[in-house]
Amino acid sequence: MNACGLIVEYNPFHNGHLYHARQAKKITNADVLIAVMSGSFLQRGEPAIVDKYHRTKMALNSGIDLVIELPYGYAVQSSNLFAFGSVQSLHQLGVEQLCFGSESGDIQSFLNHYHMLQENKAQYQHTLKEYLTQGLPFPVANKKALEKIIPANTIDFSKPNNILGFSYIRQILEQELDIQACTIKRIKNDYHDTEITNSITSATSIRTKIIDQKENINKIKETMPFQSTKQLQSYYNKTKTWHHWELYFPYLQYKIGTMTPEELVTIEGIDEGIEYRIKKFTKKAVTFYDLMQKIKTKRYTWTRLQRMFLHILTNTKKEEMKSIKESRSIPYIRLLGMNKNGQLFLNQKKSNLSIPIVSSYQREMHPLLKIEERASYTYYSIIPPQIRRHLFKQEIQGPIILND
Amino acid sequence: MNACGLIVEYNPFHNGHLYHARQAKKITNADVLIAVMSGSFLQRGEPAIVDKYHRTKMALNSGIDLVIELPYGYAVQSSNLFAFGSVQSLHQLGVEQLCFGSESGDIQSFLNHYHMLQENKAQYQHTLKEYLTQGLPFPVANKKALEKIIPANTIDFSKPNNILGFSYIRQILEQELDIQACTIKRIKNDYHDTEITNSITSATSIRTKIIDQKENINKIKETMPFQSTKQLQSYYNKTKTWHHWELYFPYLQYKIGTMTPEELVTIEGIDEGIEYRIKKFTKKAVTFYDLMQKIKTKRYTWTRLQRMFLHILTNTKKEEMKSIKESRSIPYIRLLGMNKNGQLFLNQKKSNLSIPIVSSYQREMHPLLKIEERASYTYYSIIPPQIRRHLFKQEIQGPIILND
Repeated sequence: MNACGLIVEYNPFHNGHLYHARQAKKITNADVLIAVMSGSFLQRGEPAIVDKYHRTKMALNSGIDLVIELPYGYAVQSSNLFAFGSVQSLHQLGVEQLCFGSESGDIQSFLNHYHMLQENKAQYQHTLKEYLTQGLPFPVANKKALEKIIPANTIDFSKPNNILGFSYIRQILEQELDIQACTIKRIKNDYHDTEITNSITSATSIRTKIIDQKENINKIKETMPFQSTKQLQSYYNKTKTWHHWELYFPYLQYKIGTMTPEELVTIEGIDEGIEYRIKKFTKKAVTFYDLMQKIKTKRYTWTRLQRMFLHILTNTKKEEMKSIKESRSIPYIRLLGMNKNGQLFLNQKKSNLSIPIVSSYQREMHPLLKIEERASYTYYSIIPPQIRRHLFKQEIQGPIILND
Repeated sequence: MNACGLIVEYNPFHNGHLYHARQAKKITNADVLIAVMSGSFLQRGEPAIVDKYHRTKMALNSGIDLVIELPYGYAVQSSNLFAFGSVQSLHQLGVEQLCFGSESGDIQSFLNHYHMLQENKAQYQHTLKEYLTQGLPFPVANKKALEKIIPANTIDFSKPNNILGFSYIRQILEQELDIQACTIKRIKNDYHDTEITNSITSATSIRTKIIDQKENINKIKETMPFQSTKQLQSYYNKTKTWHHWELYFPYLQYKIGTMTPEELVTIEGIDEGIEYRIKKFTKKAVTFYDLMQKIKTKRYTWTRLQRMFLHILTNTKKEEMKSIKESRSIPYIRLLGMNKNGQLFLNQKKSNLSIPIVSSYQREMHPLLKIEERASYTYYSIIPPQIRRHLFKQEIQGPIILND
């Protein structure tokens, strides 16, 4: 079977995602679409608006055949590690094509960039280091360093999708993986737009509308397939919750207030020196937004801080992440859901896999899966116990199977 | 000035406490009454119903002249360490009398018990160890071991007040402190009673009524001085909260769910072997009461488990407590409040103190005070941020001074 891989968050699955899936299938002539999807928490350091199982159902009902989980350990990280985990997941499953969205839609420019970067690696690294020493945040320093070696810059590295796309290419070529990449030009709104102006709208603007409107999600119906609205509604009916940072703020404030500065520094992503700043501003803040406004600097960007705060909440340690970062492969594949077609593909590949397929949690398991369990636990912690237990059961019941 | 010390929790200050304070003053002919009071959390491993400052005001308005804090590190511990911290606090302040409540009201029987115990120490320790090996909880094993060496048992060691009283005597005599102890026979209801039947009523029954009745505390007005009702009401008006375990359950459940078993074992009071049991039942429980019912055993008593859960919440480590337990003295005295008379006493004693008097928190401070800060932070964590900040300020503003 000819499989095409997509790297996604589906937060939530909307018309833009539908367009991307359909185009990817058409261009690559794929029999089966495989999505690697972030689970409870997302790359920008935020909780997904509804849980991974409801987002998986959205995907399966809109043309995706198989959904696997991008582990928290890769999903809530900057582009390189995010790309490593995603691309490796596809590779380990034997998927030989990847189709990602970008602003330009021109795969050649990504490849050219990679080769120019390879030829000027020393200069790039030197310049990057210089900018970082000046106190610039990584995305800005990286953009400026790339522009120095690639003057005719056709990729705008201020766009998150371009940064990610480039990271995928880099991982594929550096690891010499047998994956053919293509890209589809994204249409309509920017990633960061918050106004809904069209039937293809950014996920950010959709989330803003959903959270503002509480249970009434009529306003965003036009922007997504019916199944997405249905799954959103289904999750809300069970939990009366749209997940967003403010709901986790009491836990974050409690957690930071009871941690010693020394303990804070053991947490993934927390540089020595910022621990007192974190304690000080957390004590003073009255909302999560208030905390972010107070604490952010040029060096500590919004996204970077949100990731730190998630790692604090999920108790993710530098020590745990060390071996994960050093490893040249991913330790397992975790299935979230599939339809008949996805099952067929999986059955073909199963015997040739070099890493295990897991679904549940056990007492003895890989550190990456231990982190995942804590992340899921954290994700559901804002839901009342009775309902939470019911939702957490999904985590141990194995993948969703869609029969139709 | 002739000072008499009392060791108290005042949760809340009621008519029984008023009786005890008045009797103590009369019997000892004291000019000044000094109370060593537990702060945010109490010996049975529970949050105090209102904060230490409102309980301090109750005491100062009902005849107590000076209130100092029994640090969390001693207050939430079994009787020996609790007694060590309390008796040492009085000793370090130069208080030479202690008056405690007991069932018998007969100080001689406490002294006799101590001496009999001294003479049969080896046998006592052997029997105690035997009972503990059989899996009996400490209080039961202790009671049975004592009964073996003291057949004409006049002190009932199933009564918490008798256990504590005996521990005070033991600390005073073992450390050869210059403190004269006396005891007052407690009148009316048992400590564990939950029915309000008289104007002198157990604190447990008063708390049950308060928590059940929410803002309406008319039912317990008869059981306490007017100032106690006033302070209770004042705290509730600010916070809309009576502190009890159920309110902390979401934090406890979140915290345990995101801790590794290895981390759980580093927490004070947690024996190796119970960490998986704690994780398992916490995941399943829907309320704190539900958790306690599920997890308690003959060996792990209600009180012992509640203390463990508090140490988890406040992130109190075995390692931190080690040096505190090994020390032959307490590291500081923390003032909570005083009236003119208390100030007068303090001024007399100040120049002769061998340990510092502290009120606020600093970055560099004794581990015991660091634990205290986290305990206070935990205590107020269930209050909305704006109000919490206001309440937490009391912690750094120094003692309450009552001028009248």
